[in-house]
Amino acid sequence: MSKLPNVTTSIFTVMSKMAAEHNAINLSQGFPNFPVDERLTKIVSRLAHEDVHQYTPMSGYPPLLTKIATLVKSSYNRNIRPETEILVTAGATQAIFTSLLALLKPNDEAIILDPSYDSYEAPILLSHAKPIRVALNDDYTPHWENIEKAFSEKTRMIIINNPHNPTGKILNESDFEKLELLLEKYPNVLLLSDEVYEYITFEQKHISTHTRPKLLDRCIMVSSFGKSFHVTGWKIGYLVAPDYLMKEIKKVHQFLVFSVNSICQVAVSEYLDLVNINEISSLYQEKRDYFRTLLKNSRFELMPCEGTYFQVASYANISKENDVDFCKRLITEYGVAAIPISTFYADEKDLKLIRFCFAKDNQTLEEAAKRMCEI
Amino acid sequence: MSKLPNVTTSIFTVMSKMAAEHNAINLSQGFPNFPVDERLTKIVSRLAHEDVHQYTPMSGYPPLLTKIATLVKSSYNRNIRPETEILVTAGATQAIFTSLLALLKPNDEAIILDPSYDSYEAPILLSHAKPIRVALNDDYTPHWENIEKAFSEKTRMIIINNPHNPTGKILNESDFEKLELLLEKYPNVLLLSDEVYEYITFEQKHISTHTRPKLLDRCIMVSSFGKSFHVTGWKIGYLVAPDYLMKEIKKVHQFLVFSVNSICQVAVSEYLDLVNINEISSLYQEKRDYFRTLLKNSRFELMPCEGTYFQVASYANISKENDVDFCKRLITEYGVAAIPISTFYADEKDLKLIRFCFAKDNQTLEEAAKRMCEI
Ligand SMILES: CSCCC(=O)C(=O)O
Ligand SMILES: CSCCC(=O)C(=O)O
Repeated sequence: MSKLPNVTTSIFTVMSKMAAEHNAINLSQGFPNFPVDERLTKIVSRLAHEDVHQYTPMSGYPPLLTKIATLVKSSYNRNIRPETEILVTAGATQAIFTSLLALLKPNDEAIILDPSYDSYEAPILLSHAKPIRVALNDDYTPHWENIEKAFSEKTRMIIINNPHNPTGKILNESDFEKLELLLEKYPNVLLLSDEVYEYITFEQKHISTHTRPKLLDRCIMVSSFGKSFHVTGWKIGYLVAPDYLMKEIKKVHQFLVFSVNSICQVAVSEYLDLVNINEISSLYQEKRDYFRTLLKNSRFELMPCEGTYFQVASYANISKENDVDFCKRLITEYGVAAIPISTFYADEKDLKLIRFCFAKDNQTLEEAAKRMCEI
Repeated sequence: MSKLPNVTTSIFTVMSKMAAEHNAINLSQGFPNFPVDERLTKIVSRLAHEDVHQYTPMSGYPPLLTKIATLVKSSYNRNIRPETEILVTAGATQAIFTSLLALLKPNDEAIILDPSYDSYEAPILLSHAKPIRVALNDDYTPHWENIEKAFSEKTRMIIINNPHNPTGKILNESDFEKLELLLEKYPNVLLLSDEVYEYITFEQKHISTHTRPKLLDRCIMVSSFGKSFHVTGWKIGYLVAPDYLMKEIKKVHQFLVFSVNSICQVAVSEYLDLVNINEISSLYQEKRDYFRTLLKNSRFELMPCEGTYFQVASYANISKENDVDFCKRLITEYGVAAIPISTFYADEKDLKLIRFCFAKDNQTLEEAAKRMCEI
């Protein structure tokens, strides 16, 4: 008997594989296809010949820890201690998994907001805890009343994802005030804040948990250099947590992976001195706007996109199929791969929505849009 | 309350940190200090400019999977299917953690042979399973009678580590026959075989589980390119398991880390075409012999070393201190860091044994030995 009987191959793997098999343009799994900043690849190329090939310390390469603290300071004016409050992880996925496994106990409940990224549930189940799913409103804002109703004596964690994958929604000041009020009533509930797209927001500014003093003593903040620096394959993420939580997370981390790829840690560390991290949002804002313009005359209806590099679109005008079937046909007949939004819900939902990744060079976006306009 | 109340910072972290603080020669944590093969660093340097920066597929970079199958074929004449029986992991540690977490259920028992590497226990405890520890014989051969006595209805797993860290012992034909006989009686018991030092053995040839047909249908074999190619910081390992176990392991892997550092996977894949993996044993055999010769006139008594890059030594002639205290004094007074063997046992043991890593350049070994001869 499986410990995860309902887990199947992740939708990202399924769709990327199908895209490759049919030679489709892959706008499904989220990763950029344009070249990485030459300044960063040059660093790697030089480092290869240096002494960067053995274990870094368990928490991360010390200069990288310091640079992350500097980044948080300059982005959010928050002071964090590099040695005790930061952990470098093998991607944000490992940060999330390790935190949940370290902190959730049997019969604990963890609240997830649907549609939700697919990697939260497994570590909850493997902790013998229970995922409690609360649907977002139709406009993808959190339904705070329903969230409060879902809280109980057993609640140990609430997971937020801001900016939100797949919908691109970002939380506003009022959302944070409601969250803070709610958590005040539940002093033992922890907050896992998945902010891997923190540097990819558009008209509205991202509000990070780093800037919410009321949340800091119970918040695990997760981020990703893979997303911010267009190197998803490197698997370099990090988390920030207060000392008393970090102690427990590191206990698991040291036996789960021990340490993280040394070359890429050193490279990110050096690159942080060169890069202007605020340019990332404008890069992706241009791509979003271009992709949306290209699709103006298609029959897809485009939803708002406030952040992330994902565009959600409705195909209700095009087909009555469910979204999985529609995505398959989109690959086989039109040569474009997307992600069906229903897979982000625990319950089957037939919303006729699919997600496109626009982290692609213009030529790719143009060719994909051309095909999509032919439908 | 902690989920791992008895876990403290791993001894490797403690000793490496103390070595750095006191500017001691670090023969504690196992990692090489000599330059990596230039052919390998050149590959990395070139790859930095190529399209190797996005997610590889979840199981691993496909050409690497194929090359691993070829390596297993040429080393052990075993045929394995790259797509379904191999998983690339963020180091052997992640392979072990993921396998145990995926396969052990609450109240299962997992048998560990002491002295044992420190990373087996945490995933057992986090699965709410029970580690059952059986001490090796005084000569570090397995005590098969005691092992058999430790088996019960609840036994789900036995973990072997061959070649053995910290003792350097390797299992012989008769050990495998006894293991096979025992497991025949327990059809539901799985075998986790940690063979990260498979390519570092000396007078005796390593017997891999790959060559034991009776074990293959229940064996998870774990290996490490970090150890074999002197790049412990890269965190590239792999595991081989039959399809029905691999399915469960991949369910956890895809949400634990999703995929592994792309550049280094591609680099290892290319390097496997160039390297003669059998040269690794002779490199380390020379180092072992040199280190032992250098210590001939010291007061340390050297234990046999059949494989791995670790040398165990007794200091019974030198001091009556316990091994942790002795190791600390060895750092502060003599400037050499080692690992106390007692930390590999669940029960406190006062064996007066410590472990040195000889994966170092000759100058380092000479200077360390000089200091050790002054004691
Ligand atoms: C880890 S594969 C999924 C990548 C991603 O974050 C997404 O497509 O949503
Ligand atoms: C993961 S740090 C420990 C390295 C090692 O395998 C050892 O020193 O035994």
